[in-house]
Amino acid sequence: MSLVVLGTVALDTVKTPFGFRKHMLGGSAVHFAMSARLFTNVNLVAIVGYDFPQKYIDFLQRKGIVLTSLIKDNGKTFKWKGEYRGDLNTALTLSTELGVLSVFKPSISKAQRRIKHIFLANVDPDIQRHLLVHMCSPQLVASDSMNYWIKHKRKSLLRLLKQVDIYVANDQEARDLSGESNLIKAAKSLSARGPKMILIKKGEHGVLFYSDKFIFSLPAYSTEKVVDPTGAGDTFAGGFMGYLTKIKKISQSNIKNALAYGTVAASFNIESFGVERTSILTPKDLNRRMTKFKKLVLF
Amino acid sequence: MSLVVLGTVALDTVKTPFGFRKHMLGGSAVHFAMSARLFTNVNLVAIVGYDFPQKYIDFLQRKGIVLTSLIKDNGKTFKWKGEYRGDLNTALTLSTELGVLSVFKPSISKAQRRIKHIFLANVDPDIQRHLLVHMCSPQLVASDSMNYWIKHKRKSLLRLLKQVDIYVANDQEARDLSGESNLIKAAKSLSARGPKMILIKKGEHGVLFYSDKFIFSLPAYSTEKVVDPTGAGDTFAGGFMGYLTKIKKISQSNIKNALAYGTVAASFNIESFGVERTSILTPKDLNRRMTKFKKLVLF
Repeated sequence: MSLVVLGTVALDTVKTPFGFRKHMLGGSAVHFAMSARLFTNVNLVAIVGYDFPQKYIDFLQRKGIVLTSLIKDNGKTFKWKGEYRGDLNTALTLSTELGVLSVFKPSISKAQRRIKHIFLANVDPDIQRHLLVHMCSPQLVASDSMNYWIKHKRKSLLRLLKQVDIYVANDQEARDLSGESNLIKAAKSLSARGPKMILIKKGEHGVLFYSDKFIFSLPAYSTEKVVDPTGAGDTFAGGFMGYLTKIKKISQSNIKNALAYGTVAASFNIESFGVERTSILTPKDLNRRMTKFKKLVLF
Repeated sequence: MSLVVLGTVALDTVKTPFGFRKHMLGGSAVHFAMSARLFTNVNLVAIVGYDFPQKYIDFLQRKGIVLTSLIKDNGKTFKWKGEYRGDLNTALTLSTELGVLSVFKPSISKAQRRIKHIFLANVDPDIQRHLLVHMCSPQLVASDSMNYWIKHKRKSLLRLLKQVDIYVANDQEARDLSGESNLIKAAKSLSARGPKMILIKKGEHGVLFYSDKFIFSLPAYSTEKVVDPTGAGDTFAGGFMGYLTKIKKISQSNIKNALAYGTVAASFNIESFGVERTSILTPKDLNRRMTKFKKLVLF
C-alpha cells in the first residue's frame, strides 16, 4: 500500500538553546515523509521554488520518497524562521515567506490518484480540498491544520472536515475550532462536524485519540534530550498513518499501535535539528525504542 | 498496615461553572484520606478551630478515619476560597484565612508514631519536618508542597527533602524548585536533593514518575465530567500511597499500579464538589473504573 502526503517543503531557519540552522530542509510534508517512509511508499505532493537546493531533491530521492508530484516553480521556496526558548514547547515564529506556496495548486499524477491513504498536512484548506477532489477512491483521509486557517479560513476548513476521516490538531487548535475547553468535549464537537476520528496532539503531554467507538490516551516518550521540536507533530502523523497504511486494517488495536508508533517516531524528531535524526532512522531503531516506550507506559 | 497523613483540614468555598459551595469540608489531608481509606487505615494529623462543624467530625469518623491526632484549637479553622473558570485547570485563589494553621504544631499519639508509611501533605515544611522527627521508624515517607513554600521557605523545604523517599509536586512546582524546564531534568535534579522517587502531577495531562531505576508516565483518565478539581492531587496521592501501604512491597510493578490507582481515584474527585464523590466511593467503583482506564491507555 502507498500513501500520499500533501504539504509544505520548506527551508527552515531555527534557533534553539542548543544551536542554530539556516535554510535546512523542513516543512510538514518532509517531516511526515521521514517517519512514514519506514512503513510504506510515500508520495509527496508539494511545491518548491527555483532556489530549492538540488542536494535536498537528491536527498529525498535517496530516502525513497516519490517526487513525481513535486512541482518546481520559478518563485521562491517557502521559508520559515523560528526560535524556541525555555521549555522548547512553543515556537516563536520570526518570519514566514510564503513564496511559491501562495500560488500552489497541487497536481498529482494519474497513477498516484488511485492511492487510497491520504494525509493532508497543514496548508490552506482550499488547497487540501483541491487535492482531495482529484483522488479516485480515498479510503483513509487525515487532515492537519493550524490556527491561521482556523481564524482566517474557518468556513473552508469546516467544509473540508466533512470529507476527512481523521482530523489531526494540537490541543489549542482543537479548543479554538470547537469552542470547547475540555478536550473530550472538543473532540466530540469536532467529530460531529464530519471526521469519525479526532487526534489531538499535546506536545510533551502526548496524544488523545477520540472516536465514537473508543477513546485512547498516550503520554509522550519521556526524554530530556529535546533539541528542536519543529516537525514533531508531522513526524507523529507520519508514523501513525504509515503504520496504518502498512497494516491495512483500521481496527481498534491497530489504531492504538499506530498512535504508539507515531509517538515513538516523534521522540526521535525532537532529538536533533530538522530531519537530521529521522532521516537516518531505521525500523530497527524504531522498534527498539518501542520496547522502551512500553516499559515507560504499560503497567 | 496503616498510614499517617499530615495536612490541612479546611472549610472550602468554591465556585466553578457548575455551581457553588460554601464552607464545605476540604483540605489536603481530607482529600488524601478519602481515597487512601479504600486501601488502608488512615490516621489524620491536623488541626481545626472551634468553628469546625461537629457534623464533619462525625462524617470523617463514619468514613473510618482515625482522628486521635486531630487537634481542636480555639482559633478559627483554615479557610480557602477559590474559583475555577474556562478549562478548570487553574484555581484562582480569592482568599486564604490561615486561622489555627498559623499556630499548628502537630502532635501525634504514641501508638501512631510507630506507623511506617507517612504522607506529608502540603503545609509549612517546618511543620512537616516537626512531625517526621517524632516518627519512630518511618519506612516510606512522601511529601507534597506548594509554590508558596518553594518561594518563601526554600531552605526548610530542601532540608525536608533530604529525609523523604518520594517528593510529590505539580509540573510548575517541579520546574520552580529545580530551575529546570524539562520535566525529566527537573525530576533528576530534585532526586539529587534527596528523594529517591519524584512524582510529578500534571493535572489533565496525567503523571510522571521518576527514580534512578525507572521512569513511568500515565495520562489522566479522559473525562468530560469536570465539576471541581480541588483536591485532585491529594486524592491521587491518597490512592497511590494507600495502594502501596496495602500491597507493602515497593516494587516497580507495584509502583506502576499505585500510580494507576491514584489516577483513577483522582478521576472521581473532579466529578463533584469537594469530597462529595470520593467520600461515597467504594473499592468496587474504583476497580470497575480501573478496568475502563486500562482500555483507555494500554495497547
